[in-house]
Amino acid sequence: MTSTHSPTATPTRDLSRDWKWTPAEKIAARRAFDLALSRELEAVLREAKERAARVGEASELWDLEHWLSERRRRIDRTFDYRYSVLPQVFASLLRDGRLTEDDLLGLAPDKLDAIRHMTPS
Amino acid sequence: MTSTHSPTATPTRDLSRDWKWTPAEKIAARRAFDLALSRELEAVLREAKERAARVGEASELWDLEHWLSERRRRIDRTFDYRYSVLPQVFASLLRDGRLTEDDLLGLAPDKLDAIRHMTPS
Repeated sequence: MTSTHSPTATPTRDLSRDWKWTPAEKIAARRAFDLALSRELEAVLREAKERAARVGEASELWDLEHWLSERRRRIDRTFDYRYSVLPQVFASLLRDGRLTEDDLLGLAPDKLDAIRHMTPS
Repeated sequence: MTSTHSPTATPTRDLSRDWKWTPAEKIAARRAFDLALSRELEAVLREAKERAARVGEASELWDLEHWLSERRRRIDRTFDYRYSVLPQVFASLLRDGRLTEDDLLGLAPDKLDAIRHMTPS
């Protein structure tokens, strides 16, 4: 074996990392991304207020703090706008119901189709 | 110089670290400590609910998370029941209005007097 490839390199590289995005697709992608983010933040905001209103004792307050911090970390992790990961992000947002396919209609049909069939990482 | 003492050792050692506590004083100290802690937690709980109710957008939600976590850390730091630091804890709680001198009446008068004149660390 004279290959210099690392044995840990993924054999089935995700081709969506190299997609080319037209200017119109970039606009549509940004719009969908921002829409999903605002839905997510609104949902967290609503649930946080409900949780805070239900808190009856101090230990539940620290549960609320932990929940908020977990939510913030999850949002930071999920909402990554690099084009190399954006298809995975959209796949994950579709799965979680934060986006519908209609929200992504500005993307080329082959991209949409690939995202629809992607297994979110 | 043959001394093995560290040059950073405090020259005016706080003698309250070595106080002896009678069983009755221990009971009074625990009661005062628990009282102050419950007042503190109740105040944080009340303010957290008010803050949560006022939150209007996501960035304020992360402010709330930060405030909660700061409060939790401060409570953990303040409420330290080791007898070696308890006089300092009581001095600090008196200063912050979480305890009154009446709450500490079960302690010997000389302890009370020392706590009253202590500069909280």
